[in-house]
Parts: sequence; structure tokens; C-alpha cells
Amino acid sequence: MSKILGILGSPHSYGGSGSLLRCALLAAQELGFETELVELYRERIEPCRGCVQDEEPTCKYPCIFEDYGREILFKLREADGYIVASPVYWYAPSGPLKILIDRMTALENMVAFGEPSYVEGKAVGVITVGADAGATLAGAYLLTVLNAMGAIIPPWAHAYSHRGKEALFDDRAVMDAINVGRLVAGLLLRVRGQNGPLTYLDDPDLRDRIRTAVLEEKRRWEAQYGSERLSLCGKSGA
Amino acid sequence: MSKILGILGSPHSYGGSGSLLRCALLAAQELGFETELVELYRERIEPCRGCVQDEEPTCKYPCIFEDYGREILFKLREADGYIVASPVYWYAPSGPLKILIDRMTALENMVAFGEPSYVEGKAVGVITVGADAGATLAGAYLLTVLNAMGAIIPPWAHAYSHRGKEALFDDRAVMDAINVGRLVAGLLLRVRGQNGPLTYLDDPDLRDRIRTAVLEEKRRWEAQYGSERLSLCGKSGA
Amino acid sequence: MSKILGILGSPHSYGGSGSLLRCALLAAQELGFETELVELYRERIEPCRGCVQDEEPTCKYPCIFEDYGREILFKLREADGYIVASPVYWYAPSGPLKILIDRMTALENMVAFGEPSYVEGKAVGVITVGADAGATLAGAYLLTVLNAMGAIIPPWAHAYSHRGKEALFDDRAVMDAINVGRLVAGLLLRVRGQNGPLTYLDDPDLRDRIRTAVLEEKRRWEAQYGSERLSLCGKSGA
Amino acid sequence: MSKILGILGSPHSYGGSGSLLRCALLAAQELGFETELVELYRERIEPCRGCVQDEEPTCKYPCIFEDYGREILFKLREADGYIVASPVYWYAPSGPLKILIDRMTALENMVAFGEPSYVEGKAVGVITVGADAGATLAGAYLLTVLNAMGAIIPPWAHAYSHRGKEALFDDRAVMDAINVGRLVAGLLLRVRGQNGPLTYLDDPDLRDRIRTAVLEEKRRWEAQYGSERLSLCGKSGA
Repeated sequence: MSKILGILGSPHSYGGSGSLLRCALLAAQELGFETELVELYRERIEPCRGCVQDEEPTCKYPCIFEDYGREILFKLREADGYIVASPVYWYAPSGPLKILIDRMTALENMVAFGEPSYVEGKAVGVITVGADAGATLAGAYLLTVLNAMGAIIPPWAHAYSHRGKEALFDDRAVMDAINVGRLVAGLLLRVRGQNGPLTYLDDPDLRDRIRTAVLEEKRRWEAQYGSERLSLCGKSGA
Repeated sequence: MSKILGILGSPHSYGGSGSLLRCALLAAQELGFETELVELYRERIEPCRGCVQDEEPTCKYPCIFEDYGREILFKLREADGYIVASPVYWYAPSGPLKILIDRMTALENMVAFGEPSYVEGKAVGVITVGADAGATLAGAYLLTVLNAMGAIIPPWAHAYSHRGKEALFDDRAVMDAINVGRLVAGLLLRVRGQNGPLTYLDDPDLRDRIRTAVLEEKRRWEAQYGSERLSLCGKSGA
Repeated sequence: MSKILGILGSPHSYGGSGSLLRCALLAAQELGFETELVELYRERIEPCRGCVQDEEPTCKYPCIFEDYGREILFKLREADGYIVASPVYWYAPSGPLKILIDRMTALENMVAFGEPSYVEGKAVGVITVGADAGATLAGAYLLTVLNAMGAIIPPWAHAYSHRGKEALFDDRAVMDAINVGRLVAGLLLRVRGQNGPLTYLDDPDLRDRIRTAVLEEKRRWEAQYGSERLSLCGKSGA
Repeated sequence: MSKILGILGSPHSYGGSGSLLRCALLAAQELGFETELVELYRERIEPCRGCVQDEEPTCKYPCIFEDYGREILFKLREADGYIVASPVYWYAPSGPLKILIDRMTALENMVAFGEPSYVEGKAVGVITVGADAGATLAGAYLLTVLNAMGAIIPPWAHAYSHRGKEALFDDRAVMDAINVGRLVAGLLLRVRGQNGPLTYLDDPDLRDRIRTAVLEEKRRWEAQYGSERLSLCGKSGA
């Protein structure tokens, strides 16, 4: 079965970026995809030490570090598509997400060993949420980097909101996030010769239905972990 | 027949960006696409005056200006894919290309009139050539904007060179540009349910063959117009 | 007397970016600076044809084109500081402003002739106004380019608003724009050994006083030219 | 005595970015400044958990995490200027540097507590080194963010090289890095009413003298720690 992986670069499981990411993943499920959500703040990821610059090529999959990052690289290799979501910290993805991107060099640099990049052909979309400015710069950065690793990008692949924690109540952002999920799934179906959507869908009923589902998930999560509980390294559940 | 449109934002028909763009278009032809190359410096394009901000939505296709820009918008609407090439002027596309992008609002803003964006589903790639820095920023900008208008993006959709006028002798850049052409074509074929390439091809023979073809075109062009001849507004031929 | 030049890349004299620019210039006047505002949409500016890439260095001040652009380059050379304001068109400055930046190569490239860049030491600030996203990317671009031409940048040199035509009613944006004017002026005074502000001032009275002054100017302008009147090439007054 | 702090976001003490940073710091010393170099890869820095978004403002100096990051924030508060250097990892600063930037919110967010940003008025410059593209995007990002925290920026504040580990042999990059150091120092002197340089100096003798000094430092360091030794978290010396 085909899988779309959600990557969350936020310390909050159900903050703005986490909530919109869940909307996108539900939309992908409705097109028949399995989804999984990985939260980067759950465990430490070692920073890339730049082996790609060594005289002899040594940077390759799997990366030398045997850590949470390696597990995620494994999932990135296996998945058919990714949706990457981050809060906007200083106009850019969060630090832990940047560390993961650096580590993804091990997937891309397989080209130095006569193989294709392990990101080649993955379909991707991105979601960025801030309380003010910088969402465009953060999203443009993610799309550009993923394409430079070999990913393919459906139409309207970037959803964003300026409303921070309230992003789930930003109607346009929710509709956009749902389309990110639909269109990543749709592009995957298409390139395999199957039917799949490649056009933006503006459907308030779908939007409200998916939003309600995410709100319910969020309430169950808060009932268990508390509303202030962060999914910080080793400190939270979910 | 399907068409891929090349948009050249350079004053030089066969400078670095122009030459790499021609490589990309030849590669698309080999996959059965018709191609056409539009040079923005050939005639004036009126700058966008921002009607999209009017109280009543007025910004729509065709744009109010009856000029060369309108002709290009027509071609952009008709084409199945675009490859946009520009010299890097201060880390960004050239001024005339920025003016065209602003004018493309008329294609995208059809969403305000209940239609899809006229850019939706076009497959796109970009080429940026500078003598120093800024090629990444310029290319990231173009990909991001085109995706935000609804375009789809194949893997490895950005080719660049730091070698300015000598870009045609930058082996990696030529191979990358050829792949931009191949993969824009390949993605179009795939989303229509046909076979088409979606992986990077490293083929020195293909690279040299296409480079030779572009060099020959360039020599014929220079024989007719002179090596210093610029394709400036109304001043040159080709 | 010292002069700070305002450069407006908008077709609207008193739209969002134009209004905030006028706030900034009034604030600079209160510190004893003469100001002048140049509207790029007033006349055509020829696009840069990239002479900087010629074998022999030929790109130098004054630029070969004898047009409105040349007049503006003269003013840019004479002024002590600039404040550059633009609407956000596709996450970037407007096309005419990009054309001016390309033409500014003639000021900067004096380094190829044994002179300093004619932009070196100018103090600069920027203002970007959009109706949605992209203000950060547009502002970051302008600051980066101006610094790479030799300009110095005071603290808090970028004011922006997401409120488009209503930017003059965005309290934070107005206060920020006033600070851009104050701090460009303040930095110029400081580097000359005089007293001048280098810290952000949050002063609602100053904000409201300057906003009122700009609103009055705007009303007088609209009484003369009409509220819909654009400052398009050759078509408007003020 | 006045201090300029060097921040190194590389795992290599004397790689390209580390070496150019040392050139910049030596140049600042020649203008009478004390300098200190902090290597981010030496110890773990906890990722920012985004307290700035809490209902009640809680993000303030000192940050809640009692770690290496807190020590660096202390140094950043005390210093008069910073020079921030990073290898280019996917067109951006390294992950650990991004984590530090996120943590610097604690310095800037003092504005929410009625104080000025603790970054306000610091003079800053940046250095980015890659083996290929992206140096401009990485440098533009750093300058923009630091200015948005309140820093002031001298002319020519970004030095970069595309030559990776060989950056110390990139003549223009070394001269640029020396100017970054000189001009950060010069701007600090000027805003205090003292004499200091604000113009680019092209001086091959100075360049070669400082390069030789850094090469000697590097050789001593390699004699002690080995040429392959990385300054990874807890694993290296110097």
C-alpha cells in the first residue's frame, strides 16, 4: 500500500502547523493512502557533520548516526510522498527540521555512488504556520530544497497561515492544507497511470468535515496529555 | 500537439541562459513535444498596475494592456508546459521577466471569477545563469511563484550555472538543463497516463550532441546578426 | 543639506506602500533631513541589458540609456540615504523596481574602474506592503541587494504590512515605517559623529500625528487627481 | 573593552567557514577589538520550544534551558558585535546555527517586557561557504534575521565562497571576510563618535598577511588534534 509521510517540525502536536498537517493527511487518506506522522521534537536528532565534503565520498544512506534521525531517514526512503509542516521560526523552518534536512543529504548523495537520489520521484507538499511574517520564505525554502533532492511537486503545494495557534480556524489555510494532501496523493496516482486529482478543490463541506475530525482528535489528545503539554524530547506522549 | 514554451528573460539570444534554454527545448523535442521560444527583450511589456487590488475584481485574462505581454500571456495559456530562463541580475530574474511574472496575475486570478487558474497543471522548469552568486535564490523564486500559480514541478527542475556567458561549456549545467527539458516533458506525459521519464539521466553523449546542436544554431545566428548583437527591444533579429 | 530619497515602486501614489513611505520620509524630515520622493511608474525605465558581462568593462555611471532611469541614478548618487518601498507582487518588488535595481549596477560597478561603489555608505531602509504573503521575502531581498552594493543598514530597517491598501491603518506598520525613516536618518547622523537615534521608538502620539499628516496629503491629492487615478506612466499628476 | 563575537556553525574548526571567520576576527583585532570565537558544534543546544507563542508572554532572557545555548545567549548579550559564519547546508545555515537563531528569540522578545531587544544596536556581518550554490540565500537569510532582531549592518557585510574547504585560497573571499571584520568594527567605532573605516579595502598585502596567520593557527591546531578531527559535540578539543 502506498504511504504518505507527515513530518512535523513543531514542539506542539496540535498547534497550528500540527493541526493543518493532520488535515492534509486525512485528505490523503480519503484518496486511499496510508499515512504516518513523525514528530521531530520527540527525540534528539544528531546534527549533520558534513561528511559530504570529505575527499572520498562517505556520505551515504544509512547515515553514520544511529539515532532517531536514522529511523526517520528510513521512513523517508520507504514513503511515496511527504508533507512537511513547520512553525515559522525567524522566517524559516524550526531548527530540528533544519537538522533533518541536513541529514537528508545521506538520501540524496546516493548519486555519488551511482544510484539515484532516494528522494527522486517522491511527491511533496509543505505547510508553514506563523503568527506574523515569513511563511512564504519558509515554504519556498522547503519546496526548493526537496525539489533539488529529486522530489516532484503538485500544484498549490504550499499551505500557510499567519494565524499561529489559531490556524485551524483560518478557513483558507485549512482548505489549502487539505488540497496539499489531496494533490500530493493525486500526483502520485497520476504518475502511476491511475486517476487522481490535479486541480484545486474549494469545498466548504469537506473543509468543515476534516476540520471537525482534527478538532476531535485534538480534544482526545488534550484530555490525555493536557492542553499545555508539549511533545518535547522525551517529555510527552501522544 | 503538445507544446512546451521557453521564456527567455535575457537581452542575449545565445548568452548563458539562452543557450541552456535551447538545450532544454531540444531535449523536450526529442520526447515528441513542439517547442517555441519567446524572448522578453524583443518588445516592451507594460508593467502590471495592480488591478488585482481593486475593490471589484477586475484583474482577469486577457490583461487590459494590448501589448507584447498580452501575446505572451496567450501563449502561456495555450502551452502545456514552460521552461523559464533568466540571467541572474542581483540574485533574481531580470527586470523584464519580473514584469511578465507580475502580468501573469491575469492568468492566475481567474480563480476570483470561478475558473481555475490558467497556470494550473502546467509543468514547469527553470534555468538561471550568473557569473557569480544568486543562481539558487533566483531559481527558488521562480519555482515557488509558478507553483503558487498552480504549476506542477518535475524532479530536478532547476538548472543553473555560475559561468555566465560560458554556461554552454559547464558540463553539469548542460546536463542539468537537458534534464529540465526531459523531465518537464516526462511529467506531462505521465500525468496524461503515457510513459515518460521522471528520473535524472546522466548521459555525456546526449549532452555533447545537444550542445553541438546549440553551438551550430548560435554560429548561424551570429553569422546573420553579429556576435555583439543584442536582442534588445526592436533592435535585433533572430 | 543632507537628503534622503524615497523610491516608490507602486503604481499608486497613496496606496499602502506609498503611504507608509510618506510616513517614513516625514519622520526623517523631523530629524532635519531634506527628502524627495521618486515614483518609478511615472515614466518608462529601460531594462538593463547586462553590459557588466562584456569582455571589456563598459558598465559604468552614467548608464548608456538616457532616460528616466538615468535621472534616478543621478538622484541615487547624490542622496545620503534611500528608503525603498514597493507593493509585494508575487513575493517580490514590482517589475519597475526590479528594473531600477538592475540599472543600479552602473552605480555599483564603478569598482571595476578603481572607484568605490557609488552606493557605498548610503543608509537604507525598505518598506513592503502586500495583501497576503511574501512581504518578508520582498524586504529581505531589497536589504540584501542594497547591502551588497555597499549600503549600511540601521536597526529595524524593514517595515511591512499584510493589509494592502489599508496599510496606513495598520498601527504597527505605521510605527515601523516611521522608525525606518528615523533610523535611516539616525544612522547617517551617527556615522558623521553627530547625535542621532539608533533605537526603536514606540510612540503612539508621533504615529498618529504623522499618519494624520499623510492622510491629509492623500486627501488633497485625491481632490486634485481623483481617488482611482493611478500614477501610471505619463497618465497622472501629483 | 569592546568585543566582537564570532559564531561558527560548522563541525570543522578550520574548514572554509571557520577559516574565513578567523580572518574576519583578526581584522577586527587590528582595529582594537577583543574577539572571541564560539563553536556551536562543541555542545548540544536545546531546540527552541516556541514559548513566544504562549498566551502570557514567557519567552524572555535568560531562556528556560540551562545549557550551552544559554551560555551563548549571555555572550551575545554582552558582545558589541557579531560575525556569524556557517557552511551552506541546503542553501541555508547549518542546523545547529538555526537552533541558535531560534533560541535568540529570548534576546529579541524582551520588547514584550518593555525593554529593548538585546540585539538592538549590535553590529553584524556574516560569512557563508559552500561547495556549490546557495551561499547568497544563506547569507541573505542571516542578515535579514539579525536586522529584524535590531542589529545594524555595515557595508559589504556578507562574505562568501563557493570553494568549500579551499575557501582560504579564494582570494576574493578572504579579502571580503577581512572587510566584514573591519567594517563591523568600523561601524561600531563610528556610531560611538570615533573614527573607523566604512569603505571596502582592497589590500593584497593585508589579505596575504592575515591568511598566513590563519594558516599557521590551523597548522598548530592540526598538529594537536589531527587533520580529520572534527569539533563535534564533546569529541574534540581546541
